[in-house]
Amino acid sequence: MAARLAVGVDLGGTQTKAAVLDAEHRILRRAVIDTCAGQGPPRVIGRIVELIDGLLAAHGAARDDVAAVGVGAPGPLSHASGVVLHAPNLPGWHDIPLRDRLAEACGLRVTVENDANAAAYGEFVAGAGAGMRDMVLMTLGTGIGGGVIVDGKLHRGFFDSAGEIGHTIVQPDGLECPCGQRGCLERYASAAAVARRAVEAIRGGEASKLAEALGARGTLDARDVDAAAAAGDPLAARVWDDACRYLAIAAINIQHTLNPGLIVLFGGLAQAEGRLLDPLRAHFERLTWRSAPDHPRFALSALGGDAGVIGAAALARLAVAPR
Amino acid sequence: MAARLAVGVDLGGTQTKAAVLDAEHRILRRAVIDTCAGQGPPRVIGRIVELIDGLLAAHGAARDDVAAVGVGAPGPLSHASGVVLHAPNLPGWHDIPLRDRLAEACGLRVTVENDANAAAYGEFVAGAGAGMRDMVLMTLGTGIGGGVIVDGKLHRGFFDSAGEIGHTIVQPDGLECPCGQRGCLERYASAAAVARRAVEAIRGGEASKLAEALGARGTLDARDVDAAAAAGDPLAARVWDDACRYLAIAAINIQHTLNPGLIVLFGGLAQAEGRLLDPLRAHFERLTWRSAPDHPRFALSALGGDAGVIGAAALARLAVAPR
Repeated sequence: MAARLAVGVDLGGTQTKAAVLDAEHRILRRAVIDTCAGQGPPRVIGRIVELIDGLLAAHGAARDDVAAVGVGAPGPLSHASGVVLHAPNLPGWHDIPLRDRLAEACGLRVTVENDANAAAYGEFVAGAGAGMRDMVLMTLGTGIGGGVIVDGKLHRGFFDSAGEIGHTIVQPDGLECPCGQRGCLERYASAAAVARRAVEAIRGGEASKLAEALGARGTLDARDVDAAAAAGDPLAARVWDDACRYLAIAAINIQHTLNPGLIVLFGGLAQAEGRLLDPLRAHFERLTWRSAPDHPRFALSALGGDAGVIGAAALARLAVAPR
Repeated sequence: MAARLAVGVDLGGTQTKAAVLDAEHRILRRAVIDTCAGQGPPRVIGRIVELIDGLLAAHGAARDDVAAVGVGAPGPLSHASGVVLHAPNLPGWHDIPLRDRLAEACGLRVTVENDANAAAYGEFVAGAGAGMRDMVLMTLGTGIGGGVIVDGKLHRGFFDSAGEIGHTIVQPDGLECPCGQRGCLERYASAAAVARRAVEAIRGGEASKLAEALGARGTLDARDVDAAAAAGDPLAARVWDDACRYLAIAAINIQHTLNPGLIVLFGGLAQAEGRLLDPLRAHFERLTWRSAPDHPRFALSALGGDAGVIGAAALARLAVAPR
């Protein structure tokens, strides 16, 4: 039977992943390449075409066996037109018609989704969201993003920018964000924010066992802060806990707006597992309503780095065969 | 043709409204009674039955002509079970099976919705939301509530408490709210909050032309503050403007979460029209992203006090004849 396969692609600033999937969202074969973002959009797109062709060849499949190709890409982008408006991690990506260029080069139906939306849909169809109709995924990495599933469908929003949870305001008149707002969640609880707040406190004279690492390397990352917090460093513990507190406030606002049954945590920070989930839940329970039994369940990503390709492929299938 | 009509009921703490509507959401006849909330749930429900019967009799309609009855009621409530869990404005309402009691007494199919959800759906099908697929309504009255329309459908949430916009947190560690949280929007931008903040400032010694009215009456309401702000009173202007600022922050968080094309303002404060919409829009534009063209349109309720009965009736029709 032809056209039983789908291809999912997860275009990142450093690596690009691709997979061949069956109709049950199972990954049959996968591959990963360096994005080579510095070589510019035409070369990046050319490498994606080679990646897809190589994957199909290795799987012994022809293009005719592929129902659709779905690409998760950094945004902002327009799903409707398949154009990446700009991508901070991909130099030169401004108004790039990714969908049409790929479709022409591959001769396949292609859809383009925001990468956080793709990850959310992946977790929904094949991961932590199993059995749910409504779910919100928060991507906790260098930045913070998200995806919203309502009534079994990805909710993209009127302007394709639903789920930008990292730019909900959790502190009026708070820290400036490059997005132009003040007090965005991303400025308090992303991996970059956790590292930056620890560095600023140490440079401001606070004692921490991280001071030595900072002095030696000139920088810290969120894993350093997580590890130091786990080892009892008071400064690191405070910075980490405050990030969890702001995540809880954002989750409360999601609860009262969308009231999902499930919030899934995805990405780098989520790898801290219990050191993220436990304080997040504790702050959530402390700060929200106690009377109403309407608290979402929190879960970590079940698919990890596969969520993006699975979701992109599943959404591409929907586009060629809507319900 | 039988069963072409629907009845919408809007159960309030003071008044209860009802209307007979056709399939195009047009009100054919309406009636309003005192709720007599102090007389307790059985009598309130009995009066609703009399209201519906009187309305049908006046319209020359039989029960057989009615496809369904929809009731918008203060919450929290369970749509699925038709039970009002408790209603702060209705003494004695705890776990009252409103749907089943009304259905037994009327012999009609009854559905029960949160009143803000009913108003949101009313504006969606027949008011300010015409032509939209996604919309958020904010009810600005003594408290602040809301309703969420996603992809043409009312989004109730996993626990039936989506759209509780008044309890999104806009000020971490802010003012205590009776709900148990701190910093809820409702504590800064509801009609009650606007009045209370003006009273507190005057009692704290700040000069205001409202001091005389407060001294004479012992209280102020939001209309007093609105009027004094419009007349140039600095304290009133500051309190009013700050309420609009917090509404803008809540709207930005809605924008980044749901990204609706439209936010509708409904209820008492919305009657201030330009004095609400203009500063709200100005704060929104000042505080949010400038680069992305994803700003929702803001509109005032088009249906006013009819939104609840129209929405409740329309939702009741859906329940008996789902798409």
